[in-house]
Amino acid sequence: MKLAVVGTGLIGASFAKAARRRGLSDDIAGLDANAENAAAALRLGLIDRVVDAVPRDAAAVLLAVPVDGIADWVRRLANHPGALFDAGSVKAPIIESLKARDGALPPRYVPCHPIAGSERSGPEAADADLFAGRQAVLTPVPETDPAAIDQVRALWRGVGADAQLMAAQDHDRILAVTSHLPHLLAFAYLDRVEADHLSHTGGGFDDFTRIGTAAPDLWASILGLNRGPLTEALAAFKDSLGRFERALENDDREALQAFIDAAGRRLTRLGQ
Amino acid sequence: MKLAVVGTGLIGASFAKAARRRGLSDDIAGLDANAENAAAALRLGLIDRVVDAVPRDAAAVLLAVPVDGIADWVRRLANHPGALFDAGSVKAPIIESLKARDGALPPRYVPCHPIAGSERSGPEAADADLFAGRQAVLTPVPETDPAAIDQVRALWRGVGADAQLMAAQDHDRILAVTSHLPHLLAFAYLDRVEADHLSHTGGGFDDFTRIGTAAPDLWASILGLNRGPLTEALAAFKDSLGRFERALENDDREALQAFIDAAGRRLTRLGQ
Repeated sequence: MKLAVVGTGLIGASFAKAARRRGLSDDIAGLDANAENAAAALRLGLIDRVVDAVPRDAAAVLLAVPVDGIADWVRRLANHPGALFDAGSVKAPIIESLKARDGALPPRYVPCHPIAGSERSGPEAADADLFAGRQAVLTPVPETDPAAIDQVRALWRGVGADAQLMAAQDHDRILAVTSHLPHLLAFAYLDRVEADHLSHTGGGFDDFTRIGTAAPDLWASILGLNRGPLTEALAAFKDSLGRFERALENDDREALQAFIDAAGRRLTRLGQ
Repeated sequence: MKLAVVGTGLIGASFAKAARRRGLSDDIAGLDANAENAAAALRLGLIDRVVDAVPRDAAAVLLAVPVDGIADWVRRLANHPGALFDAGSVKAPIIESLKARDGALPPRYVPCHPIAGSERSGPEAADADLFAGRQAVLTPVPETDPAAIDQVRALWRGVGADAQLMAAQDHDRILAVTSHLPHLLAFAYLDRVEADHLSHTGGGFDDFTRIGTAAPDLWASILGLNRGPLTEALAAFKDSLGRFERALENDDREALQAFIDAAGRRLTRLGQ
């Protein structure tokens, strides 16, 4: 099967590496606005050739570009005969943008989000196991071609992911809580961390702030695009924080302990 | 050198294990209100004997008990001839409590905080390298015996830690930012995480919430005891969060990106 990858950063390059290693494809074309990224992906043997346009004979095309650029790429490839799929962390706004301009989604475009990542970026960070054991969420719409869904699902499974169908709005609401809000909190927290603090940190600090080094341009787009569900998640968090703060002001040890106990049980109950 | 450890949980048992392995002591007495903990520490070979009272001939006594119990133990051992030192995450309130009741600290008590820990607890989690390469902060007061400071500093260095002197108020202010606030934020965040969220988490979630399983009783005491500096740190965080929220509401991508960029630079600039 011939594949094409638009965007040879961490996600695109990891997908290509996994697809090759797992025998899904022996002909992967790569395209990147950043010529150095594409050249590096070729040099590292992650793709077979660098192209300026997506080949017509690609059976499937992964759009591994920043969330702000996905809708444009889908529109540009609307008539491509292959299955199109993306890896954007936000889904509904992309779908809505396409519907608003064109009335419907191209039937062979399957909106996707593999819930996988790394603090590292670029083709040098490509990891053939990046998707192994991770969820790959597919958020097709009623007009999406079932054959394209099957094809894309098989590709995600082929690179080791657990493919799941979900409504785009549900995806965005859940990811606002599980991913976007923690990033926002880590960024806001780091706003107050000074040099004299950093010589006195324990392991908890390193873990808590690891997501703080996420790529600013990508994450500004993700947070901005998902600002509706994210604002809701933030409001709920602030409500919880306010209750915690009152317990702290009153030095109410029982309330503090109950709060901490509930937090831990939420994690351990679910085997985290 | 004979040592005594009051409290054979993670910190006490790890100190004993490290002290034995590094040849600092071949006679370590262990005492724990929890008889099972003490028995486990003995069975695991971390201590040499279980005692009901701290032996008079111990050259140094580590008080590895919860922060709320440290002042009482210092008072109880005020006339012990050995050096007393603790491992509490909050320092000034313990010192103030002793001064308020007794007018001064016992001169051979050296308030300490090794900035090391684990999500695990109990003697079974003992780690001879828990303190290796970590900071051990000493916050002596003017009346503290310099010989006791030297002795305790040598013990922390002996188990591999980087021993540093600091004012108790500075310690508490810094730890409020680097440790207590992240815990509080993780606890409050987890208050809003539901079961349907947890099947859709990436690696960032696991890292961000790792501190969420901290022991509720210990952490309610730590946060409650350090509520002054913690409330200040929380107020500063909320101010940053408010600015982030306004950028989000306005979908101001430049402001969001600048915020995220600054957060990452704070970490990377300091080699985290």
